[in-house]
Amino acid sequence: MTNEVGASRALADFIAAARPEDVPERVRHEAKRSLLNFFAVALAGAHDPVLDSALATLAPFAGPATSTVVGRSARTDALGAAFLNAAGANVFDYDDTHPGTVIHPTAPVAPALFAFAETRPMSGADLIHAFVLGVEAECRIGNAISPGHYARGWHITSTCGVFGSAAAIAKILKLDARRTLDALGNAASQACGLVEALGTGAKSLGVGNSARGGMIAALGAANGIGGPDRPLEGVRGFANVTAEKPNFGKIADGLGTTWELARNTYKPYPSGVVLHPVTDACLMLRREPGFDVARIVSIVASGHPLLRQRTDRPNVRTGREAQVSLQHTVAAALIDGAAGLAQYSDARVNDPAVRALSAKVSVADDPMMPVEGAKLAITLDDGRVLETLVEHALGSEKNPLSDADIEAKLRMLAAPVAGIDVDGLIGAVWSLDTATDAGAVMRHVRP
Amino acid sequence: MTNEVGASRALADFIAAARPEDVPERVRHEAKRSLLNFFAVALAGAHDPVLDSALATLAPFAGPATSTVVGRSARTDALGAAFLNAAGANVFDYDDTHPGTVIHPTAPVAPALFAFAETRPMSGADLIHAFVLGVEAECRIGNAISPGHYARGWHITSTCGVFGSAAAIAKILKLDARRTLDALGNAASQACGLVEALGTGAKSLGVGNSARGGMIAALGAANGIGGPDRPLEGVRGFANVTAEKPNFGKIADGLGTTWELARNTYKPYPSGVVLHPVTDACLMLRREPGFDVARIVSIVASGHPLLRQRTDRPNVRTGREAQVSLQHTVAAALIDGAAGLAQYSDARVNDPAVRALSAKVSVADDPMMPVEGAKLAITLDDGRVLETLVEHALGSEKNPLSDADIEAKLRMLAAPVAGIDVDGLIGAVWSLDTATDAGAVMRHVRP
Repeated sequence: MTNEVGASRALADFIAAARPEDVPERVRHEAKRSLLNFFAVALAGAHDPVLDSALATLAPFAGPATSTVVGRSARTDALGAAFLNAAGANVFDYDDTHPGTVIHPTAPVAPALFAFAETRPMSGADLIHAFVLGVEAECRIGNAISPGHYARGWHITSTCGVFGSAAAIAKILKLDARRTLDALGNAASQACGLVEALGTGAKSLGVGNSARGGMIAALGAANGIGGPDRPLEGVRGFANVTAEKPNFGKIADGLGTTWELARNTYKPYPSGVVLHPVTDACLMLRREPGFDVARIVSIVASGHPLLRQRTDRPNVRTGREAQVSLQHTVAAALIDGAAGLAQYSDARVNDPAVRALSAKVSVADDPMMPVEGAKLAITLDDGRVLETLVEHALGSEKNPLSDADIEAKLRMLAAPVAGIDVDGLIGAVWSLDTATDAGAVMRHVRP
Repeated sequence: MTNEVGASRALADFIAAARPEDVPERVRHEAKRSLLNFFAVALAGAHDPVLDSALATLAPFAGPATSTVVGRSARTDALGAAFLNAAGANVFDYDDTHPGTVIHPTAPVAPALFAFAETRPMSGADLIHAFVLGVEAECRIGNAISPGHYARGWHITSTCGVFGSAAAIAKILKLDARRTLDALGNAASQACGLVEALGTGAKSLGVGNSARGGMIAALGAANGIGGPDRPLEGVRGFANVTAEKPNFGKIADGLGTTWELARNTYKPYPSGVVLHPVTDACLMLRREPGFDVARIVSIVASGHPLLRQRTDRPNVRTGREAQVSLQHTVAAALIDGAAGLAQYSDARVNDPAVRALSAKVSVADDPMMPVEGAKLAITLDDGRVLETLVEHALGSEKNPLSDADIEAKLRMLAAPVAGIDVDGLIGAVWSLDTATDAGAVMRHVRP
């Protein structure tokens, strides 16, 4: 595969020709872990005010109520459900992360597939296969344009996610290679989402559109809406327009041999991933003998420069801002001994004790530290220093959540949503390979 | 207004505070010319295969059938109608052009307003006012990022159009300044569309999304979906991410004093605007004594380098490609004495006589020539050269279509659509200022 031959066509050819039996078992297993994590975060986000607003916005225009909105009793049309469930799964940035691109890969893809599955019967094996291919498409495109694309200001989950959704639905529709290429081209016409919107409801429009737009892209291709021949690598195609010097080899090389989904990671905490090693360190050090919040004089976190660049935010006022605040994260974790959604509520952020402790937190650059590591040093009023080094944060590639951890995350996040059959949901996802009706999973996330 | 104070907020403040009586009469008149031209091109595009495909794609998910799809008897939900009518109005690139940005300003804005007007009664005066403000928003944002944005590969009608639709619907909803800013932020999260897609159906997805996305942006803001404070001028905001060195003064300077809509232009021919002076020249020279297609030896068009860069396409095969082909345009205009939709059909492009003559056409750069001018020289087999210079193409800013020309364009394009009440439509648009129910106009574009 040379760059000249065309990354778009190579990707489309691969998707069109792919067979379920060519996907290794460990990748299919990772797909189910990703889906469990997806349902966990979608249930957590289901009643966020942004979701209420989005549902109210779409309701007057909604079509046949075929498809489940996760965690809600109302159904809506499949495009709307895809939009809402993608937005909900990502609203707290508590979902999965593809290392290297920081794409949240499942939110744009799984909601499109499940919403569509409720309108058009498909087997669980087919859904898993389409999901794997969708993640492959979005993450490989992301690899080709990273790190410049995100650095420039593109919300890469949204911009690349639409290709993932398009690829997945194209596969379900059994589109041939040319129509799959059209689906990718139709996706390119719809790729959107800005980093500037992070921390606001506007972010969720980009994420929701990625799932919805991908469905339109693939269904449109099936109905004869064609796209350009080189939507990714064309001179004015997606990659060249949104990034400097894309590496197109990363789209096509190793297709069918290496699997991006196998690298997926899951967040143990609903905060920016660079904060996770610091959070681990807080939860460890507060168990040290002699630890006492009241005696803390100062706290220094040392990490990769990204830690400072992304999270040195001493005076946040909302839970959403706090998710990317080192100062709040450290203070809340040390006081509460936890770093769950409760620690990122507006109330917790404005608690006087949390604010007082967060004022004692500072950050230092350690360019030798990997981004998944950090050091924490807590100085007490008797001069003692409690210190620890976390090399690989919980949930990172080298220290992944176990299957049991992911199930526990799902149970924790499902608990506040009344009427959810968690055991049924967990069972349905683990046995999805053999399900004849993939859409039936959604029964378990409807109260 | 300095750049520091914030172009986004300045624009939102202006939109929220704007009063219909502050819009000069000549601008309101231009709005009606733009709407007449819009209905002309939307009727022309209503039965394009891309519209059939888009309608089929959306149909299974369509909501309450409140809103008219121009030129069709079926109605659909307002978001879908906005999408389809925007796509249809621009499908031939036969719509209006804002000089400088090459935005087609009406397609993203008018369809959103009319679709919404059929769900929520609004006066014609309010619709016209919202339309003027929407065009102001999209064209001023376009001015700030031109020419770099389009040159980079962004389909500026789609990317800026979403702000126009958002601003127009925000005004109809009477959003305050903060919520109008949120609408612009929600629009920024949805801005998409690539030049790579031109000439394919994928282009229409971007244009359709601009109208639909702007509605979502404004309705979402009304329902509480907030956006960032600086969606346009933020470091990772729309302008900085999609263009080099935006000029933010062009967004805010002169708001309420200068009106971008007043500069709007309308195409007499369904082809790239750089081809229009050449087309004028063809139609003139074929009336010269002694002109005979059979005796033509060679034809040379000289123009601004953009003429060559955009339209030197000697071997096109489809009507859509032919719309940006100098060779086909010259050949068909000289043979047929016309340059309407009929000259840009696939059949006409593949006609042997047209192809033979197009092989005799070449292009020369004349860097002194303005983009709206061109020279044409036809050499006959007796050595005679028929020559003419067009300084300002018909339809350009200095040689605009008259009101009667626009009415004639509408009559011509409405004629093939069965059951359209053209006289009623023309009357309804010219008297829109005094209409109590703006949505009633749509009755005239339904067969």
